[in-house]
Amino acid sequence: MAHAVVILAAGLGTRMKSRLPKVLHPLLGKPLVGYCIDTAFASGAEKVVVVVGHGAEQVRQTFAGYPNLSFVVQEQQLGTAHALAQAQPVLADFQGPIVVTQGDTPLTRVETLTSLVDTLQKERAGMALLTMRLEDPTGYGRILRDEQGQILANVEQKDATPAELAIQEINPGVYCFDASLWEKLKLVDNRNAAGEYYLPDLIRIYREAGQKIASIESKDTGELLGVNSRAQLAQVERVLLERLRSHWMAQGVRMIQPETIYLEPSVELAPDVTLWPGVILRGHTRLGEGVEVGAYAVLIDTVVEAGGKIKSHTVCEEAYVSSGADAGPFARLRPKAHLEPGAHVGNFVELKNARLGRGAKAGHLAYLGDAEVGEESNIGAGVITANYDGQRKHKTIIGKRVFVGSNSVLIAPIRLEDDAFVAGGSGINQDVPAGALAIARERQRNIEGYVKRKRGETQ
Amino acid sequence: MAHAVVILAAGLGTRMKSRLPKVLHPLLGKPLVGYCIDTAFASGAEKVVVVVGHGAEQVRQTFAGYPNLSFVVQEQQLGTAHALAQAQPVLADFQGPIVVTQGDTPLTRVETLTSLVDTLQKERAGMALLTMRLEDPTGYGRILRDEQGQILANVEQKDATPAELAIQEINPGVYCFDASLWEKLKLVDNRNAAGEYYLPDLIRIYREAGQKIASIESKDTGELLGVNSRAQLAQVERVLLERLRSHWMAQGVRMIQPETIYLEPSVELAPDVTLWPGVILRGHTRLGEGVEVGAYAVLIDTVVEAGGKIKSHTVCEEAYVSSGADAGPFARLRPKAHLEPGAHVGNFVELKNARLGRGAKAGHLAYLGDAEVGEESNIGAGVITANYDGQRKHKTIIGKRVFVGSNSVLIAPIRLEDDAFVAGGSGINQDVPAGALAIARERQRNIEGYVKRKRGETQ
Amino acid sequence: MAHAVVILAAGLGTRMKSRLPKVLHPLLGKPLVGYCIDTAFASGAEKVVVVVGHGAEQVRQTFAGYPNLSFVVQEQQLGTAHALAQAQPVLADFQGPIVVTQGDTPLTRVETLTSLVDTLQKERAGMALLTMRLEDPTGYGRILRDEQGQILANVEQKDATPAELAIQEINPGVYCFDASLWEKLKLVDNRNAAGEYYLPDLIRIYREAGQKIASIESKDTGELLGVNSRAQLAQVERVLLERLRSHWMAQGVRMIQPETIYLEPSVELAPDVTLWPGVILRGHTRLGEGVEVGAYAVLIDTVVEAGGKIKSHTVCEEAYVSSGADAGPFARLRPKAHLEPGAHVGNFVELKNARLGRGAKAGHLAYLGDAEVGEESNIGAGVITANYDGQRKHKTIIGKRVFVGSNSVLIAPIRLEDDAFVAGGSGINQDVPAGALAIARERQRNIEGYVKRKRGETQ
Repeated sequence: MAHAVVILAAGLGTRMKSRLPKVLHPLLGKPLVGYCIDTAFASGAEKVVVVVGHGAEQVRQTFAGYPNLSFVVQEQQLGTAHALAQAQPVLADFQGPIVVTQGDTPLTRVETLTSLVDTLQKERAGMALLTMRLEDPTGYGRILRDEQGQILANVEQKDATPAELAIQEINPGVYCFDASLWEKLKLVDNRNAAGEYYLPDLIRIYREAGQKIASIESKDTGELLGVNSRAQLAQVERVLLERLRSHWMAQGVRMIQPETIYLEPSVELAPDVTLWPGVILRGHTRLGEGVEVGAYAVLIDTVVEAGGKIKSHTVCEEAYVSSGADAGPFARLRPKAHLEPGAHVGNFVELKNARLGRGAKAGHLAYLGDAEVGEESNIGAGVITANYDGQRKHKTIIGKRVFVGSNSVLIAPIRLEDDAFVAGGSGINQDVPAGALAIARERQRNIEGYVKRKRGETQ
Repeated sequence: MAHAVVILAAGLGTRMKSRLPKVLHPLLGKPLVGYCIDTAFASGAEKVVVVVGHGAEQVRQTFAGYPNLSFVVQEQQLGTAHALAQAQPVLADFQGPIVVTQGDTPLTRVETLTSLVDTLQKERAGMALLTMRLEDPTGYGRILRDEQGQILANVEQKDATPAELAIQEINPGVYCFDASLWEKLKLVDNRNAAGEYYLPDLIRIYREAGQKIASIESKDTGELLGVNSRAQLAQVERVLLERLRSHWMAQGVRMIQPETIYLEPSVELAPDVTLWPGVILRGHTRLGEGVEVGAYAVLIDTVVEAGGKIKSHTVCEEAYVSSGADAGPFARLRPKAHLEPGAHVGNFVELKNARLGRGAKAGHLAYLGDAEVGEESNIGAGVITANYDGQRKHKTIIGKRVFVGSNSVLIAPIRLEDDAFVAGGSGINQDVPAGALAIARERQRNIEGYVKRKRGETQ
Repeated sequence: MAHAVVILAAGLGTRMKSRLPKVLHPLLGKPLVGYCIDTAFASGAEKVVVVVGHGAEQVRQTFAGYPNLSFVVQEQQLGTAHALAQAQPVLADFQGPIVVTQGDTPLTRVETLTSLVDTLQKERAGMALLTMRLEDPTGYGRILRDEQGQILANVEQKDATPAELAIQEINPGVYCFDASLWEKLKLVDNRNAAGEYYLPDLIRIYREAGQKIASIESKDTGELLGVNSRAQLAQVERVLLERLRSHWMAQGVRMIQPETIYLEPSVELAPDVTLWPGVILRGHTRLGEGVEVGAYAVLIDTVVEAGGKIKSHTVCEEAYVSSGADAGPFARLRPKAHLEPGAHVGNFVELKNARLGRGAKAGHLAYLGDAEVGEESNIGAGVITANYDGQRKHKTIIGKRVFVGSNSVLIAPIRLEDDAFVAGGSGINQDVPAGALAIARERQRNIEGYVKRKRGETQ
């Protein structure tokens, strides 16, 4: 029988010192609680309920449109058992196992959830929990077991005897319960120093009901890493980045100074990709076999096909670079920049909604916006497509084998037919027929002796 | 009674292999000895004396203008006690406690100095010294104590017996003395292998005078880190950077790959600032709440108000970016660049002594120098203010809602009134009245068949 | 008698997941096996033989032209002894010691090879091998010795008894043999589980021949680091980078955040060079005393003389920057860019095959290709040399003290004589005599009321 997952995500996160709810803080481009939600669904959960506190509406909106995902609000922070109880209205009739995870521990594994469910069912237990053994268990609740190894209780750090403090098996707060959970939850009380309803009390309650408490142990202490501060977020990020780098290196990706490379889980890389130091790959960036990305380049949602090359200090967003095309250094490919095979974009060149045909070149200091450039055309240094007239944007259409001389401005809407030739320094505002020379610059005059006179004047 | 501080900064620093005196080497933008001077004053010192050797004049000039700061020169390197003795002329009549610190250990804490002074006074001791316990004390002078815990002596590594070598309590060389210091210093001799006058000999001398030797212990081994080589300087820098990053993360700053981020102690950050990898923040840079700084941006003495945005690969120096304004990627804001709220500076754009009004835009490949741009004006791609005529700089004044077409050059001094419109590709050297169109480009001619003929010619 | 070196470089390297043969993977700009080859020759080897398997032809071509270097191919992978046997045809008549190293352990030291040869000769041994002691010897062959310390055998991990597994002395696979090697190799058989011919079997064979087995021990476990995966390559790179950084810091180079700085072994640095974070120095780059390189600059085969300055985000390749010259930020110096003393290149400026004379300036948004600029000339913002006419490249020659006004385009071939003055916004296609003003722009017209009419039209 399929299970449900409840994610406890109502913590205030005051140590983050942020206007953003803690569980929405991004970790490699995805909100913290997004990891928990994705893990929950990946474990096969039929329903997922997120218990939200601070910033509930913002959390809900961030994940609008996920099917089988519900949000419930814990208005008052009365303890973890109280938080879980908020999920009852959604899951009251749910008959399968109910897994509980923490919204601020993004590295909890899918296998941990499925293994908890399996263990609960195989051992016909009322409750199953994750445990870990730590060299230094300070701060965590310790797991007490009897001589047969049966779990007796969870003892919080502050309530523990010296003997209990020496126990290294701890409770990271990931559980699986049978469907009697809601009934049991009512038995949790708040008669303790803090006046809170504690979730680990369920161990005692299930035991008193004569039900078995099963457990599984994780060797991956990364699963434990919770995020309560910016520094902890950075630490989780480091662990995740190291995993991603190791994964892709094992797949044949060459990374130079890998510890300086940033990449998000949604990125896809092929063998023999080379990443130079400081490369940043975000979103749905996909790099084909043999692609080289130069130092300090930033690629967002960008595709580079096999053998394409992005040189250093280049910024791409929603761009497409075909095989054998290259861009940079110091290029900027903005959304809908499209380089066909063998096209070349050089330094200080910006493309926005612009297509460069096969073998076309824009090598230096150019701006191509709302433009199409045909194959083998050459866009000279300093050429600008004036696509904006102060009110509207217009298109520039350039045919094949066109030569646009340096420092020309093409005032859109405009069309340059195949084999047109624009003289350098021209301001072009009329279409140019195929094979025609277009020129629009004043004849040069040399005025001899001018400099001597001018210098004299100013003395 | 207020205390004085003597900073021993006469070490040769030959291992630095530098023309610069060791204590002037910069650490996060401030000379090494500057840390010691600031710490001394922050501890409440009435007078601070720096004992300088190599490069004395250069050190003195670097700190010219500090009140209550004196420099004395140790001409010959005859030992630490000899170095200290050089300060006597300045402090001979000083009746308060005299603290001694090392000019090459920049991480010594303010509280260490005040605590030494307090201890000296409370315990009515003749001398108080800092100690530390190290796992591996190799190389440091060991502290010998009697059975009552009274300090007997400092034993140097090379003079220590095996039993003494096992002592883990060491002497980092930070002291506080009563006003009898100068008299005691005369009793230090140089009858040792190196023929040097050693400062730790004062322990014996104060004891023989029947005075108490007090001590305090520091748990922060960072305080010990001395700089004798470039590698040690890099190590101290690493410690200091980690402290700064931790501090600002605790204040609510989001850092992505924090270990790649460089920031100086003089920088001020607000909550919800986001810093992408490789950001460099120097000098009196101040970032308001929610400011985002993109990867590999470098900001020096720059202010970005709340909600401003600096995109990746942008370099700013003495710039001011208002709320809701943004710059980059690949922007350069030079001194007196000023963006008013909502102004936008895009890629390959340089501003120098230039102001962009509210909502004004300079999106691509432009140079604005000595310029004022009114609100909502649009500076086209490739527009240049020609502010230099080969002899002098001139101003460009652009009104509100002005449109400057792409690739135009504005030859300063020049004024474009409100709502003026400059056609793309124009060379403008006369003022443009309000609402007027200015155009200065040759009419375009198309010469058909040109390309075919030209290609024929060259075959 | 001089020795020969055989480098075993036939491993498949399947874990690299690459089209490139493993031993050709670059490590700080040089192929892995190149380190072994250089080490072999540096040890004084008279002949070096590389045993190649996968990608033999590609390996051979990479090192074409090395004298005294031979390649032999191991067609089938039948074990390390079989690999070594492939070198026999080249060295059959060689009478000196024969050293054997591994092509995928690039950090093996020159002194290790010479010391093995010396030991073989001094101890009149038949064979000498390198050993190391590891805390955790898991995976390596263990060295068995008798009570006198004589080497008995190498036991592979999988064949070792528990007592043998506890041995910490291991065999990294670096050997020296006498000239009877080839004869002994014939005695190695493949009667083992894997059916392979194992090189360490020679220990037994030399012993059975009554010859001595000598050994030397290395304390540098870096020598052991083999490259079988991308992650291991990155690890070796990290070790090598740390060595290079330490070396140069000890020579007086200032590195800010040294762990972010990348530099290759072929780079040369002088004292008081300052490297900001993320600097990348490749190939035969040479920086003189006091040179400063800003953050994220990339220099390839570039020379900067004493006191030159490269600002942040600058990319140089085969460029030459004289004393007191500077470039950047955001400059691009391409091959044959040459800055004479005091020349200045500013932001968004590209030079290719271009020389800037003493004190000449190109400060903003310019492209100088195939150009010579005389001393004290000023290239305005946005100036472009149009060096390409669609068919050929042409030269631009600019004299001394020339002023080229902003946004001008110089259509090559062209010559501007000394003291020429080009008005801003001009398209210049004829030579300009000395001291002349050249102007080529249309007269400006202001059309009043235009904007109001235009806005009316579009409403």
